[in-house]
Amino acid sequence: MTATRLRSTALRFAASLLPLTLLAASEPPPANPGPGDIIAAAPQGDWARIPADDLLVMDLAPDAKGRPRRVVIQLMPAPFSSGWVSNIRKLAAVHWWDDAAIVRVQDNYVVQWGDPDAEDEAKAKPLPAGIAKVPEGEYVFDRKGVNIAAGNSGSEPWTGPDAYAKALGFSGGWPLAGNDDHVWPVHCYGMVGVGRNLSPDTGSGAELYTVIGHAPRHLDRNIALVGRVVEGIEHMSSLPRGTGALGFYESPEERTVIRSVRLATELPEAERPRLEYLNSSSESFVAYARARANRKDAFFNIPAGGADICNIPVPIRKITQ
Amino acid sequence: MTATRLRSTALRFAASLLPLTLLAASEPPPANPGPGDIIAAAPQGDWARIPADDLLVMDLAPDAKGRPRRVVIQLMPAPFSSGWVSNIRKLAAVHWWDDAAIVRVQDNYVVQWGDPDAEDEAKAKPLPAGIAKVPEGEYVFDRKGVNIAAGNSGSEPWTGPDAYAKALGFSGGWPLAGNDDHVWPVHCYGMVGVGRNLSPDTGSGAELYTVIGHAPRHLDRNIALVGRVVEGIEHMSSLPRGTGALGFYESPEERTVIRSVRLATELPEAERPRLEYLNSSSESFVAYARARANRKDAFFNIPAGGADICNIPVPIRKITQ
Repeated sequence: MTATRLRSTALRFAASLLPLTLLAASEPPPANPGPGDIIAAAPQGDWARIPADDLLVMDLAPDAKGRPRRVVIQLMPAPFSSGWVSNIRKLAAVHWWDDAAIVRVQDNYVVQWGDPDAEDEAKAKPLPAGIAKVPEGEYVFDRKGVNIAAGNSGSEPWTGPDAYAKALGFSGGWPLAGNDDHVWPVHCYGMVGVGRNLSPDTGSGAELYTVIGHAPRHLDRNIALVGRVVEGIEHMSSLPRGTGALGFYESPEERTVIRSVRLATELPEAERPRLEYLNSSSESFVAYARARANRKDAFFNIPAGGADICNIPVPIRKITQ
Repeated sequence: MTATRLRSTALRFAASLLPLTLLAASEPPPANPGPGDIIAAAPQGDWARIPADDLLVMDLAPDAKGRPRRVVIQLMPAPFSSGWVSNIRKLAAVHWWDDAAIVRVQDNYVVQWGDPDAEDEAKAKPLPAGIAKVPEGEYVFDRKGVNIAAGNSGSEPWTGPDAYAKALGFSGGWPLAGNDDHVWPVHCYGMVGVGRNLSPDTGSGAELYTVIGHAPRHLDRNIALVGRVVEGIEHMSSLPRGTGALGFYESPEERTVIRSVRLATELPEAERPRLEYLNSSSESFVAYARARANRKDAFFNIPAGGADICNIPVPIRKITQ
């Protein structure tokens, strides 16, 4: 083994998921820029600020070493899942999740949180007034007026066909799938959805989950997606797996307590998360998506020639001002 | 919230990934059997024992609470990656990984282990004699003679097309992709591969990784897959993420020590893992794959009509005798 082997291997092997702060390599730009090179070179005008009003800040109890664990969730903009998103904003406004808990961690699937007493009618925490019952019709949206950019159609598609949908692409930085009439959000890693009972209109938004494994695309159109984790997903994905059925924790001690969930706008200006995403309609994003589908940067010898939409994570980065 | 809501939600929501020991529901068989129902009903003849000779048993240092952490890896059978698999058998035989460590955990990507001193020429652990240099030609295999069952072609395909490959399916319980001439293993969750440097022939097998996130299919044909984790993946996927570049741990204290790696055949008969997989050529497997692609069991309102091959995990279960 040479001294550089392990690091070199890792650098090339994982460049596609390199944190953005690390993407500006000190080496000269490669002949075949990779996704990271393209992101690093994207002009500021190709980045869009995520409004504080769309951010939920969830503070978990500190870890065993006393370190804080903050998870930031971006809520989907209208028209997507607007009924559930409205419920979630109301629940956050009344601090409904304070002292709620992460009750389930199922490997390669989901982390789920809410009222740990939800199953006990005597103890279950009542929902506040004004929580709407949302019809299942809101699982999909009229395709008219939704521009799916950088997709699998058009003159320069970045992906081949898909097992789950006729059309794929991004709109406003969100991964979407669609058919001739409708579009819907996609269950990629880190997306946040609404737990529900058997009837599709039973999810209030009080019980949420996030994907911590391979994209369970069969859930698309069958359960509501309302947002995605944009910071701190590692605080969810690295939690101990529950040993009960479906990854539920078997004792209260195993749960992770949620100290608070706040709309970022409720925090003092200085404490609000500041994040921006690469505009999915920008030239940089299209170049990034194509590079993800055709890796030719060092290490890659055989470009795939296509990409699964969940293998084209929308670049998101922290900003200071 | 009703008393049954949360549990009911979860039960339906995650049935597809329910541990097999839980799949034999006490309820009567549903009108539209789900994947779990089909697995539970599969006759014993549709299951195949995984030979102990194909199993690697990796014991990590106990967790913070002193609980043992055993990870079992099934090596791929010939002809797949046979050069690297042969190297790995030699390394295990000489106990090369004893006191090695998990050095990298990158969220939604990989866990990587090997010699923590690999970057230090003075300290790097030398490889034993007989470790072969494997040519990149072994990343793909002649399609002749490899029967890809339950795939995306044939009279009753279970999936639509794929962004990465013309053909998809399973052979001997392994997920494979292919084109007209070749087949290759697929980077699904839990698959184990060989770290390498820039040149495709630089991976010895001493440094390994496993996928703990969305399938990085762009790595297919670019890096060698040699097996999969068949037991204890949660001991890898729930490890704290590394905070260094690419998820490398920044201090030795953060690493998880590997106490030992043994071929199961080196263990006393009574201590060997006993596992079997659902034969991918069996009728039960084909029915299972189709059910994964067209969920019609309770909870699902809109069958996907197709499935990503990595959303059809090969059922594996422990056996007692």
